[in-house]
Amino acid sequence: MAQVFTLHPQLAKDCIVLGELDLCQVLLMDDARYPWFILVPKRANITEMYQLSAEDQQQLMVESSLLGEKVMALFGGDKLNIAALGNIVPQLHIHHVVRYQGDSAWPAPIWGQGEAVAYLPEELRAIQKIMGDTFV
Amino acid sequence: MAQVFTLHPQLAKDCIVLGELDLCQVLLMDDARYPWFILVPKRANITEMYQLSAEDQQQLMVESSLLGEKVMALFGGDKLNIAALGNIVPQLHIHHVVRYQGDSAWPAPIWGQGEAVAYLPEELRAIQKIMGDTFV
Repeated sequence: MAQVFTLHPQLAKDCIVLGELDLCQVLLMDDARYPWFILVPKRANITEMYQLSAEDQQQLMVESSLLGEKVMALFGGDKLNIAALGNIVPQLHIHHVVRYQGDSAWPAPIWGQGEAVAYLPEELRAIQKIMGDTFV
Repeated sequence: MAQVFTLHPQLAKDCIVLGELDLCQVLLMDDARYPWFILVPKRANITEMYQLSAEDQQQLMVESSLLGEKVMALFGGDKLNIAALGNIVPQLHIHHVVRYQGDSAWPAPIWGQGEAVAYLPEELRAIQKIMGDTFV
């Protein structure tokens, strides 16, 4: 197995890289139905959070809360959904999805519901701009 | 709002309390289809992980990894699914679900799939026994 972190090709295909934190890459899922962000720890061959070092686990919690609080404030959601699933893409990645009462899947989880709606270029630029101050 | 932690009545109805850690109650969802555990931080009026104090966030990560590694070893799963959703029950609670390739929902997430299958009393006693060494 590779010893150097590289983003899983499925995540690279489905997402836009917004920036980098100390531990994680910050991705935006290209699905305009929900503000949907993903943290990917830059560590090779990790599929479960408990496989990270204790220090990396603590840093992941810091970065998850930083991202979660930021996107809930920016997008004014009713609830944040955080999940590490990985049944399809095994590389550890942690979803952070801003949910609204009345969004297309509410109150069910979003995974496996309908088809993604790609962002328009101007929508993407707007999100990259408002998120850019945090993730450079 | 109450300033003292009490377990949300829906969680109390759906789950069996297995034990206590420093921060969290450890619950077992009464659904024999999957080994499904829930951590509930014993803090009042918290719906999002980022609302916990920094110290509690770090402790939650410790307890999540302790539980996750333990149940994956005990139940021999293929993948652990961890999620803080809360769209229906707002009290912060973190699901830890041991998944198997070929379980009844695989590879989809388990929430909202079919109906729960209650444990038999002897099954419950067996799980309480094997989990008892960790959560007293």
